[in-house]
Amino acid sequence: MTADIFITGSGHTRFGRLDQSLEDLIVEAAREAIEEAQIAPAEIDAVFLGHFNSGLVPDGFASSLILQAYPDLRFKPASRCENACASGAAAIHAGLNAIRAGSARNVLVVGAEKMTHRSTPDVTKALAGAGYQNDTAEADLSFPQVFAIAAQQYAERYGDPRDAMARIASKNHENAMNNPLAHMHKRMTYEHCREVSESNPLIAPPLRLSDCSLITDGAAAVVLSADNASASDADARVRIAAAEHVSDFLPMSRRDFVAFEGPERAIRMAYETAGITVDDLDFAEVHDCFTPAELLIYEAMGLAPKGEGVRALEDGTVYADGRIPVNLSGGLKAKGHPVGATGVSMHALGFRQLTGRAGGIQRPGAEWGLAFNMGGAAVANYATILQADRI
Amino acid sequence: MTADIFITGSGHTRFGRLDQSLEDLIVEAAREAIEEAQIAPAEIDAVFLGHFNSGLVPDGFASSLILQAYPDLRFKPASRCENACASGAAAIHAGLNAIRAGSARNVLVVGAEKMTHRSTPDVTKALAGAGYQNDTAEADLSFPQVFAIAAQQYAERYGDPRDAMARIASKNHENAMNNPLAHMHKRMTYEHCREVSESNPLIAPPLRLSDCSLITDGAAAVVLSADNASASDADARVRIAAAEHVSDFLPMSRRDFVAFEGPERAIRMAYETAGITVDDLDFAEVHDCFTPAELLIYEAMGLAPKGEGVRALEDGTVYADGRIPVNLSGGLKAKGHPVGATGVSMHALGFRQLTGRAGGIQRPGAEWGLAFNMGGAAVANYATILQADRI
Repeated sequence: MTADIFITGSGHTRFGRLDQSLEDLIVEAAREAIEEAQIAPAEIDAVFLGHFNSGLVPDGFASSLILQAYPDLRFKPASRCENACASGAAAIHAGLNAIRAGSARNVLVVGAEKMTHRSTPDVTKALAGAGYQNDTAEADLSFPQVFAIAAQQYAERYGDPRDAMARIASKNHENAMNNPLAHMHKRMTYEHCREVSESNPLIAPPLRLSDCSLITDGAAAVVLSADNASASDADARVRIAAAEHVSDFLPMSRRDFVAFEGPERAIRMAYETAGITVDDLDFAEVHDCFTPAELLIYEAMGLAPKGEGVRALEDGTVYADGRIPVNLSGGLKAKGHPVGATGVSMHALGFRQLTGRAGGIQRPGAEWGLAFNMGGAAVANYATILQADRI
Repeated sequence: MTADIFITGSGHTRFGRLDQSLEDLIVEAAREAIEEAQIAPAEIDAVFLGHFNSGLVPDGFASSLILQAYPDLRFKPASRCENACASGAAAIHAGLNAIRAGSARNVLVVGAEKMTHRSTPDVTKALAGAGYQNDTAEADLSFPQVFAIAAQQYAERYGDPRDAMARIASKNHENAMNNPLAHMHKRMTYEHCREVSESNPLIAPPLRLSDCSLITDGAAAVVLSADNASASDADARVRIAAAEHVSDFLPMSRRDFVAFEGPERAIRMAYETAGITVDDLDFAEVHDCFTPAELLIYEAMGLAPKGEGVRALEDGTVYADGRIPVNLSGGLKAKGHPVGATGVSMHALGFRQLTGRAGGIQRPGAEWGLAFNMGGAAVANYATILQADRI
């Protein structure tokens, strides 16, 4: 890491079933981030969009939609970054590279997705495209089925994860109650999540409905700035202490899925770059697309040894009042998962957390945060360490 | 531009109607570029894929397919860049940023598209998605219709461009005769291209079939290296003297289409960065998706004043034996236009041209080349200046 780069503004639409178009969502989040950064649109040197699409909307040239936010964005370079469910973090990392490269001093990054206008089977099919298509055994799998395999393999290797899965679902729904931007504000007890019932059916055994993230519309944005590029004072900016990206082979047949090697490498590299350990973290926003993913991420983060992720729940570590709360926002599980927006949302909310503006989900005095955004079944793995700049 | 960056290897599948899958095409081009660069796969620090897709293939997570080329690419960061028909140049520019940022010393960039397995109406619809979808007047336009509007507006402002259009089509088909990688090896006389006939029907007046680029499968790749990162000697590398990207508003209603401001800005900025003028160029590979685009690009390049682009044809400048041959490869018109591959192909063939390995389309002693790749109707505009490193 060379010269410091900061988040200096954030934008975040409400997540949910929204009437706005993809363009509307992008423009709303972009404007809020620019206003929060107190920067003139003309001072933005480049824009990046995280957006999955995969047939969900007809917009085949979404990068340029960011320019719709302000006349002064005309002629700025605009690019779309796509890495399945990690498209948002991909855009953040591209923005960081543009600043480090010296080709930009201020960058606007927006992540957005429009999903709820499509039927659930359509969305499931679009998302399934992010699996490996050239192997007949894998091409037909939906992502609930993929993470059901993870849960099954976890059970065989380490023991039944269903208890941990239900705790995770219940925790994240509880957290979302305090996040007005979240898609779903509905408590779910551990007991509800643990049992198969009419209101919590099996989706792909052992995954119940309560183990799956939501189909959601939404957008999030951040302004990234080189040191001295913006007028923001230290109370209003957050340092990017590390940003690491590790990709793995797409076919599940070429790797040990439950080993979660890609996420572990990305997160551990990020700790090393930032010069911290897991114990320094004050919170983490991580990719709980399905509850087994959050469980495996606890282990990748080093919160617990392999196969013992449930400990981080049992000892209270990851709860809102614990030592390292995970997904205070409600996570993909309850905040929702508008695919391209998710990674940017993690950074936007981390920025608000570390500048004391996280409202109902504020963790007082937080100094270090982790954002972990994942594409596919541990294929594109992006870990960012955010640091408060108060000191 | 800080420290120099070089192209040190190239890969290029044949363009055409191919049996290979998207993955096969990506892997073939990637391996050829790595071999040509004489680099170990482990020395590649990051990979970038230019790929449009837009529903043409089910692969929803294409970035990781590059890793399929070599076991040693596992865990390298892989990203997909998408900017409609400029997705290839978008990937090149992202690769340059990664090197300039210091996060990579050697980068593998692949561009690929698989199109011919789909019907022409399907492909036309997928491409039309790259127009503006939130204006009913624009959302229904196909790209032949969009560039027909360009030709009509050009006619109203400057005079009938159909003569120039026919010359361009004929020239590019003639050039492709000497490029074994081209999709179509078929001479087309000026007379054939000029007249509407059974074999050259009107597609969108005044565009005839001969004014439209091809639906093509193919992939291209380059290795980009920081100075001193590779063992390549100067005869086998090409300097990136400039790489500029300018995006414009997507709605045509928000700009003067025929003014081609985005392309002009990108190309003129590239000249300035490289410290050259148009007269220094020895060749150019430019985005002739439709013949009026090539005509407008002559003017954006400064080969002729506004409205007088035909002069560059009349005085022979842009022909194979002229002062600045344009599209020696045959261009999108006859080499073909596998969307995500196109921008990378321009760089790969520019590399071969400037290292004396362009075979039948070699321009002896070439020192400077321009690659201009365009997304949409002058929306995403990427200009790169390539320089031989022989001196």
